[in-house]
Amino acid sequence: MIVVMKKGASALEISNVIARVQADGYQAHLTEGDERTIIGLVGESPTPLREDNYSTMGGVDNVMRVSVPYKLTSREYHPADTQVALNGSKAGGSKVLVIAGPCSVESREQTIEIACAVKEAGATALRGGAFKPRTSPYSFQGHGETGLKWLAEARERTGLPIVTEVMDPGLVPLVAQYADVLQVGARNMQNFVLLSEVGKSQQTVLLKRGMANTMEDLLMSAEYILAQGNKRVMLCERGIRTFEKYTRNTFDINAIPVLKARTHLPVIADPSHAVGYSEYVTSIALAAVAAGADGLIVEVHPTPERALSDGRQSLNYDGFKQMMARIRLVAEAVGRTA
Amino acid sequence: MIVVMKKGASALEISNVIARVQADGYQAHLTEGDERTIIGLVGESPTPLREDNYSTMGGVDNVMRVSVPYKLTSREYHPADTQVALNGSKAGGSKVLVIAGPCSVESREQTIEIACAVKEAGATALRGGAFKPRTSPYSFQGHGETGLKWLAEARERTGLPIVTEVMDPGLVPLVAQYADVLQVGARNMQNFVLLSEVGKSQQTVLLKRGMANTMEDLLMSAEYILAQGNKRVMLCERGIRTFEKYTRNTFDINAIPVLKARTHLPVIADPSHAVGYSEYVTSIALAAVAAGADGLIVEVHPTPERALSDGRQSLNYDGFKQMMARIRLVAEAVGRTA
Amino acid sequence: MIVVMKKGASALEISNVIARVQADGYQAHLTEGDERTIIGLVGESPTPLREDNYSTMGGVDNVMRVSVPYKLTSREYHPADTQVALNGSKAGGSKVLVIAGPCSVESREQTIEIACAVKEAGATALRGGAFKPRTSPYSFQGHGETGLKWLAEARERTGLPIVTEVMDPGLVPLVAQYADVLQVGARNMQNFVLLSEVGKSQQTVLLKRGMANTMEDLLMSAEYILAQGNKRVMLCERGIRTFEKYTRNTFDINAIPVLKARTHLPVIADPSHAVGYSEYVTSIALAAVAAGADGLIVEVHPTPERALSDGRQSLNYDGFKQMMARIRLVAEAVGRTA
Amino acid sequence: MIVVMKKGASALEISNVIARVQADGYQAHLTEGDERTIIGLVGESPTPLREDNYSTMGGVDNVMRVSVPYKLTSREYHPADTQVALNGSKAGGSKVLVIAGPCSVESREQTIEIACAVKEAGATALRGGAFKPRTSPYSFQGHGETGLKWLAEARERTGLPIVTEVMDPGLVPLVAQYADVLQVGARNMQNFVLLSEVGKSQQTVLLKRGMANTMEDLLMSAEYILAQGNKRVMLCERGIRTFEKYTRNTFDINAIPVLKARTHLPVIADPSHAVGYSEYVTSIALAAVAAGADGLIVEVHPTPERALSDGRQSLNYDGFKQMMARIRLVAEAVGRTA
Repeated sequence: MIVVMKKGASALEISNVIARVQADGYQAHLTEGDERTIIGLVGESPTPLREDNYSTMGGVDNVMRVSVPYKLTSREYHPADTQVALNGSKAGGSKVLVIAGPCSVESREQTIEIACAVKEAGATALRGGAFKPRTSPYSFQGHGETGLKWLAEARERTGLPIVTEVMDPGLVPLVAQYADVLQVGARNMQNFVLLSEVGKSQQTVLLKRGMANTMEDLLMSAEYILAQGNKRVMLCERGIRTFEKYTRNTFDINAIPVLKARTHLPVIADPSHAVGYSEYVTSIALAAVAAGADGLIVEVHPTPERALSDGRQSLNYDGFKQMMARIRLVAEAVGRTA
Repeated sequence: MIVVMKKGASALEISNVIARVQADGYQAHLTEGDERTIIGLVGESPTPLREDNYSTMGGVDNVMRVSVPYKLTSREYHPADTQVALNGSKAGGSKVLVIAGPCSVESREQTIEIACAVKEAGATALRGGAFKPRTSPYSFQGHGETGLKWLAEARERTGLPIVTEVMDPGLVPLVAQYADVLQVGARNMQNFVLLSEVGKSQQTVLLKRGMANTMEDLLMSAEYILAQGNKRVMLCERGIRTFEKYTRNTFDINAIPVLKARTHLPVIADPSHAVGYSEYVTSIALAAVAAGADGLIVEVHPTPERALSDGRQSLNYDGFKQMMARIRLVAEAVGRTA
Repeated sequence: MIVVMKKGASALEISNVIARVQADGYQAHLTEGDERTIIGLVGESPTPLREDNYSTMGGVDNVMRVSVPYKLTSREYHPADTQVALNGSKAGGSKVLVIAGPCSVESREQTIEIACAVKEAGATALRGGAFKPRTSPYSFQGHGETGLKWLAEARERTGLPIVTEVMDPGLVPLVAQYADVLQVGARNMQNFVLLSEVGKSQQTVLLKRGMANTMEDLLMSAEYILAQGNKRVMLCERGIRTFEKYTRNTFDINAIPVLKARTHLPVIADPSHAVGYSEYVTSIALAAVAAGADGLIVEVHPTPERALSDGRQSLNYDGFKQMMARIRLVAEAVGRTA
Repeated sequence: MIVVMKKGASALEISNVIARVQADGYQAHLTEGDERTIIGLVGESPTPLREDNYSTMGGVDNVMRVSVPYKLTSREYHPADTQVALNGSKAGGSKVLVIAGPCSVESREQTIEIACAVKEAGATALRGGAFKPRTSPYSFQGHGETGLKWLAEARERTGLPIVTEVMDPGLVPLVAQYADVLQVGARNMQNFVLLSEVGKSQQTVLLKRGMANTMEDLLMSAEYILAQGNKRVMLCERGIRTFEKYTRNTFDINAIPVLKARTHLPVIADPSHAVGYSEYVTSIALAAVAAGADGLIVEVHPTPERALSDGRQSLNYDGFKQMMARIRLVAEAVGRTA
C-alpha cells in the first residue's frame, strides 16, 4: 500500500502517518519529491492494512493498494493515457511522433543541416548526443556542452525541441538548460541516482529500456522518476540482448502492446538500435507503429558511412523521407496520424 | 563450393566428380535427394578451387560458390522470391496468407465448426494439431490419426488445405496422406532425421524456428529439406526464449526483414506463440505484416478458456474476425492484400 | 496426482481407475510403459482429490500427490539417490565417473587407440559419435553402423562400455544392440518420440540438456523416459545459449547442485561443450566436480587440430591425463573419489 | 595503437604527439588521468601507423599496438598477474581471499557482530552496503553515511578492511573516506562517469560484471578505471541473466578461466548473487575456487530470514564456517590456500 500526501502536507502530518504505519507493525519508506511526499508501507504484520485508517488522516491525498510493484506508473493508479507535450503535439495522443537526428552531434553546421532536413521530412523533434556513453574510453565521447549549444542553435533555426542524453547526475541541471527532453540511456536504466535527479528536474524524460532489463524493471525505473513528482516520462523500447548474431539487438515488439496495457505513459520505439542495420530500420519502424507505438526515435545522418558513431544503423536523408512516407500510411491503417 | 548434379546424373558421373574433389585435396560430402545429388566440397587444400574444373564435367548442372553456410536456401543461389502454392494463392506473393485454427483438434464437430468459422473470416488454410509435442508426458498428446481424419473432413467441407505437425520421422508418410502442409515444430527444428524425411516427402513444409536457434540455424535446417530436392518450404518465426517474463516468448520481429533479405523462401509469423496472450495477438500480427511477413499462423478456438491446450493465446471467433479486418488495412498500407 | 499401476495390472483394473477419475470430474491421461501403466489426473473439478479413493483400488501400486510437474523424476517421489551401474561403478555413487573419447569415431584404428588411451588414464567409459547431428547437411554426418562396430570392437579390447548418440527413434533398437548407454543429444532433448523410444528400450540413457531449455524442461524430458519404466537415466549439463561470445556456450554450473536437490538421478557434466575451447576444459571439469557432479563426459582426440568435428574443444592424451590427475585431487577434497 | 605519456609529461609534449597523430591522418583521443595521459589513435588513414614515429617523441613512455579493444587491461600489455593488496594478503596471489558480510548494514551492533563472526571464520575483508541500488524506490535504500560509519567502527574492532558500494559519482570522495575497496555494482558496470571517478580516486576497486554484459564489456569497463592510472582493480563475476527460472542468475563459471587468460587483474566470484539461494551457495563457491577464482565475496547474516535485503541468499554464521572449511580443502586441491 502507498500513501500519497497532499502538496504542502506539513512535516507533522507526515510524521503522524509514519507513526501510524509503525504502530500497525509495518515499515514506512519515504520518497520525498519536490512537490509531494509518498509513503510506502512495506514488511509484514499481523495487523491487516486498511485504507481508511490512513485516507482520513491530515495531509493525506490518496491511499492506494496496487497489485503490481510499480505504483504511480501503473494503469491501476492512473487509467487514462498520460500525454506528454512535445512541440505542439502530444506523445500518447493520436499522432505518432518522430524524433530524428544524428547519433552524436559532430559539428555546428552539420547539426543545423540535419535539423533542417528532418524537419522538412516531418520530424517532431531533434535527437543528438553531446555526451556519449561509449564502451571504450578511447572512443569519441561527444562534444559535451559545445554540442549542446549547437543543438540549441538548431532548435532556434527550426523550432524542433531537443532530445539529448544525460549520463552524469551532476550534469542534469546543465543539460536541462539546453534540452527539452532528457534521455536516460539503456546503460543507465538502473542508475537510480540519475533517475532521481531527472525526476527532480521536472523536465520531460525519455527513459530507454536496458538491454537485459525486463519490462517490469523498466516500469520500476520509471517509478523512480514519477516518485519525484515528474510525470512527463516517455518509455522507449530499443531492443534487448539475446543470442541472435545477425542483428545488433533483438527488438522486443511484444513490449509495445504489453507496456501500453500496464502503464499510462507513452511508449516510443527506437528502430535504429533495435536492429542495427539501416536497410532494416524502416521495416521495424513500420512494425512498431502497427503494434501501437506512440512515437519513434530514429538515427539520421547525411553520410552514414562517415558518421563518428552508429553509422551502420543511420538512415540518410532519402531513406528517412521514404520511411516517413511509409509511416504515414501504416499510422493511418491503425487509426492514427504521423 | 557445392556441385549440383543434374537430375538423372549417373553413378559414374557422380563418382568422377568425387574423385576430382579428392584429387584436389578436399573432402566430398554427398547429399542424395530423390531427384538429384549435391556434392559439397569441404576442408582445406593448397589447390585453389575453380568452378570450371567442375562445371564442365559430365552430369554437372551447376557449381556454386556461396559465401554463407546455407546454399540452396540463400538469395545468392536463387535471387527471386520462391512462391509456395497454398489454396490457389501463393505464399511469398503479394497476398498475405492467414492459416488459422485450434492448437489441438479436440473433436470432429469442433474441427469442422472452426474450419467454417475461419474460412468465413477469410483464412487461407486450416491449422490444427493431431500429434502434439507436450513438455509433460501426462498432458494431452493429441488425437493422432483420428484427429487427422477430422481435419481431412473439415477440408472436404470447406476447401481449406490442412497444416498439421509431424513429430515422428516414421509417421511422415501417414501424416502426408492427410495433410497439405507438414509442420515441423520449434522443438524439432534441429531434428535432422525428421528434416530429411519431410524433405524426401516432397510435400509443402512449414518450418518453425526453435526457441534458442539463430536465424542462421533456421536457414541451415531449411537447407536439409532443400537438399532433398524439396523447395516448397515456408519459414516461420514464432518467438525466442529470453529473460522477459511478461510474455511467453520474445517475438523476433527483426527476423522478418532479415530472413527475407537472406533467403528466397516465404516467411510466416506466428503471433500466438510469439506473445502468448490473446489480448496482444492482433498487435503482433499487425506488426508482422507491416514488417513484411508473407503470412500468419494464428490459433483460434470457439471458447479459448476451455481449450485443451494454449487457450490463453487463442483468439475467439470475434477476435479473429476483427484481426482479419485490421490485417487487411495494414497489408494495403504496405502494398499488399490479405 | 498420479496413480501408478502395479506391473501386470489388468486392463479391467486400469479402466476401473479411469472410470473413477472421470466420475470425480477429472481427465485421465495414460502413459503405458512396457512394464506398467501410469494414470495422470489433470484438469479441475469441484470434487476434491483423495489418495485413498484410488490407493485401495485393484491393481494400484501407488498414488502420488507431487507438487512439481515432474513426478517419477522428483526427490519427493524417490528421496534416495538413484545409482546407475556403469562398468562396475555406479553413477550417483561416491566415485566421480569419467566418460571420454572422440566427438565422432573417425576410423577403426583410431577408435581403438583412443579407447586404450583413455582407459589407461582412468576413464570409466568410452564416448564416440557414429550418428552425428550436424547443423549443416554438408558436414560429416558420422560413420553410422560401421562406427558402432568400431566402438563395439574397442569395448572388446578395453572393457570400456560405450556411450553413443541416437537421433532417429527408428534406429533405437539398432544402436541399442551396440551401445551400453544411449545418448540423447541437446538438440533432441524435446524430441518426445525419441524420448519414449529410449525409455521403452530399457537401456541406460544419458540425457543432455537442450541449449535453451530450463532445468524444469530437462526434468520433464527425463519424466518421458521414466514413465516408460526405465529408471536408468543420467542427466547431463552441457551449457546453455546466452549472449556471451568468448565461449561456445555458458555452462550453467548452478544446475549441478539444483538438479541434485530436485531429482534422485545422477548428474553428469560436459565441460567440453560447456566452454568450447580445450585450454579451459580442465578448469570447468574441476568446477563441476567441486559443485557435486557425479561424472564427466569429455572429448579426447589424439590430434585435436585434425579432428573431423569439435577439434577446438578436444583434449589431447596429455591434456586428458593431466585433467584426470587434477580431478582426483578435487574429488577427494569434496569427499569423493575419481 | 595507444601512446602512453610519461608521468609529468608537459602540455607541449602532449600537444606535439596530438599534432603528429593528426598529421598522420588519425584522430587523437585523450584520456587524462591524474598521473599520466594516454592518447588513443583511432580512425583510418592511408599513412601506416609506425610505433617508432611516436616512441622517440619527448614525454612518451610507451607505444602499444594491442589486438584487443581493451589495452591496459590485457595480458598482452601486462603479462604478469597484477596483485592487489588487501589486509596483508594479495588478491591475485596464491591465497584465495574471502570477503564476507551482510548485503546491507542494518545497525551498528549488528555490523560489528557480523564483522567479528566472519573474521573468526577466516574472512579477509568485510562487505556491507550503505548505499543500496534497489529496483523499487519504495524499498530500503541503505543507511548512507551512517552505515559507512558503522563499517569503519567494525574495521577498527576487527582490522578487516571495508568493501562497500558507491553508486553516485558525486559521492566517491565521501565513500572513499570510509571504504578500503569501492565496489561498482552490476547495474552500474557501464556507468562510465562513475568508472572514471573511481579511477581518479586511486582507491582499490571491485568491479562487478553487469547482468547482460559480455566479458569483453567488463574488460572495457575496467579499462576506464585503468586509463585513469588506477591499476588496483578486481573483477567480479556474479552471474548473468538468462531464461532459467530456478535460480536468481546464471553463474558464468566459464568467465573465471577465460578472464584469467585475457587479463592480468584478479578475478573474484560472488556465489551469493550467482545462484540466489543459500542452500546452493557453498557448492558454487567451491566450484569458483576449483575453476581458479582469486577470491570470493559472500553474503553472511546472523538471521537471514530477517534480513532487510537478499536474505534468501545469505549464509548464517554456521553455514559460513562450514563453507570456509570446505573452501580450504578445495583451494589446497588446486595448489592454493584459503
